[in-house]
Amino acid sequence: MKTALLGYGVVGSGTHALLDLRPEHGITAERVLVRRDIASVRAIATRDFSEILSDPSIETVVEVMGGEEPAFSYVKAALLAKKNVVTANKLMLSLHYAELISLARENGVHLAFSAAVGGGIPWLMNLLRVARVDTVESLGGIMNGTTNFILTAMQQGGADFAETLAEAQRLGYAEADPTADIDGLDVRAKLALSSDAAFSRMADASAIPTLGIRHITAADVALFKQLGLTCRLIGKAERTEAGVAAYVEPMLFSANAPEAGVNGTGNIISYRCAGLGAQSFFGLGAGQKPTASAVVQDLIDISRGATAFDLARCEGAFTPDASLAAHAYYLRANSLLPAAQIETALGETPAGPACITKPMPVSTMHAFVRERLAAGENVFAAGLTE
Amino acid sequence: MKTALLGYGVVGSGTHALLDLRPEHGITAERVLVRRDIASVRAIATRDFSEILSDPSIETVVEVMGGEEPAFSYVKAALLAKKNVVTANKLMLSLHYAELISLARENGVHLAFSAAVGGGIPWLMNLLRVARVDTVESLGGIMNGTTNFILTAMQQGGADFAETLAEAQRLGYAEADPTADIDGLDVRAKLALSSDAAFSRMADASAIPTLGIRHITAADVALFKQLGLTCRLIGKAERTEAGVAAYVEPMLFSANAPEAGVNGTGNIISYRCAGLGAQSFFGLGAGQKPTASAVVQDLIDISRGATAFDLARCEGAFTPDASLAAHAYYLRANSLLPAAQIETALGETPAGPACITKPMPVSTMHAFVRERLAAGENVFAAGLTE
Repeated sequence: MKTALLGYGVVGSGTHALLDLRPEHGITAERVLVRRDIASVRAIATRDFSEILSDPSIETVVEVMGGEEPAFSYVKAALLAKKNVVTANKLMLSLHYAELISLARENGVHLAFSAAVGGGIPWLMNLLRVARVDTVESLGGIMNGTTNFILTAMQQGGADFAETLAEAQRLGYAEADPTADIDGLDVRAKLALSSDAAFSRMADASAIPTLGIRHITAADVALFKQLGLTCRLIGKAERTEAGVAAYVEPMLFSANAPEAGVNGTGNIISYRCAGLGAQSFFGLGAGQKPTASAVVQDLIDISRGATAFDLARCEGAFTPDASLAAHAYYLRANSLLPAAQIETALGETPAGPACITKPMPVSTMHAFVRERLAAGENVFAAGLTE
Repeated sequence: MKTALLGYGVVGSGTHALLDLRPEHGITAERVLVRRDIASVRAIATRDFSEILSDPSIETVVEVMGGEEPAFSYVKAALLAKKNVVTANKLMLSLHYAELISLARENGVHLAFSAAVGGGIPWLMNLLRVARVDTVESLGGIMNGTTNFILTAMQQGGADFAETLAEAQRLGYAEADPTADIDGLDVRAKLALSSDAAFSRMADASAIPTLGIRHITAADVALFKQLGLTCRLIGKAERTEAGVAAYVEPMLFSANAPEAGVNGTGNIISYRCAGLGAQSFFGLGAGQKPTASAVVQDLIDISRGATAFDLARCEGAFTPDASLAAHAYYLRANSLLPAAQIETALGETPAGPACITKPMPVSTMHAFVRERLAAGENVFAAGLTE
């Protein structure tokens, strides 16, 4: 099967290397769309996507450029030209899921995106498969390696957030603009894609309330340690009788929870089903080799004629409702909640008083935090798991 | 797709129920081979396998009777009659892997066995898939729910082995004859099947040294707790330059290891690959619904024309060599090793003195324990993980 790579960064070059390492699959990268000259692929490079689009020998396009545009236009054009598409682009997919799934179906081609969630962890494939025999009741977990690296380092080293972020950037674990990771937007896109797969309808990602880790302090982390708790950034979706509750927020885990043991850039993602019970998938959530491996798995599946993503359905849309989930919170803010909503006062930290709240709807706490942050206050909230 | 079930016990009836619950897959149980009258399936039951074999409308046979014979003869006959086979029978498979893989290939039919390892955990499927893009360096984990239930209960309740086993039998977590579980033979068969899948050659299961948990005492468990360790029965295979080391034994884990947090009938199975790093799969390793779910996944894959088991190769055989792996052990026995091999004396227990040994080849410790057990001594050994 002849393919073209759109982009030749970390994932693109890793995919190329892995295809060369495994010639037995008969999949080759015949063209590469680049924005600058790269000596090692000069012979197959082009800066003009239309050359790839109009080449009938290219059966499959591998979009590893990232960003919404021009990635979305290229993927759409490729599907319309009856080329299969493999993409790792969770942001673009989470915005255009329904349209792309339909386009692939209408044009009789495959659209696969294992690498979009969990890096090399075969998460979406197994989720799509389980949904055909069981009812997914909830899903979620640690879906972002950058923030997990920062939270692990803060817990182990005791440094403050800004300092730890700078170190993560120096080591290449965080990008120069870390917003998508630290504010939870990357997790939100991955959670929306997982919800699409599990519930066969497209989740409105913008309706998923999202708190990141930008405002966590060394004092918060020291308090968690004192309480025997570990903080992790979590994306979660739960099916309730009234609809699907979905949210992204820091959550606190006791030492015996698997999430507490997932350190560094590790990811752990789980589903709970009515019949099967809970299953978890753990591994490295990012990095060149894991991500390239996920892309090549999709390519092999397509070359063999079927992928688990062929199971993806999009039978309408749904708006997640975080008021359907409730739990207690750790809250550190200058303006705490009314006393009646506080379960345990934890005392003063250098950044303000802290408490454990009574259980409350997730939407209520998220609205409170957003309001206080908008008012310029330094607030940090983390959900408590049972 | 029309199927016939061979056996109608827990897994057979669970598979039938799940197929009925999911008519959208178009898979039906048309015949059931039974040994006794079962009112609910009287209309489709037969006691004569040849009726199923000679029925051209039956495309796929589901072997869920267990045991080596007549299961093996039936599966062989079905493959020769160009019927696909789905089986959950790890014992039979581990004895006849190469022959059955070849027969399926020669006859152009599918042979799938997701349910043979890990219950509902999609372990073998993901292992076969990863092996096509990466080099599996090691694999293993907690693969038996019965022994994990017993070890968890002993740690939480402090009771002795015999008492805990009796309780597990009363609750239906252990069979009347618990030998295959508590002596590690079930894990050995699952480890052999996993090694076959990972290394594309058939492992000689009889060459995998195997220690079970029959001789663990409440005093051993109390000592482990004092040391902050948790005992789990582990199957493990590691690729070394000189060959594959494979063994089954109780191992001790510190509290932050994922294995220490897997309680009750849970399983956790992991592989480590050269490119991807480590990935782990966690879930319920047994039970009617998880196992039936694995069987139905295989059936759906076959009805769609491809399963990951089509990737199974058997390019020869290999004999695992446990002398290629080495680590320290907890050892409790009346005749301890020579003093030079002991790292730390742990003192007397009611069943004899205990110590931590220096690192030694796995084969050496297994031979020592087998020899002492044969001499009538009550000995227990458990490997130490790094």
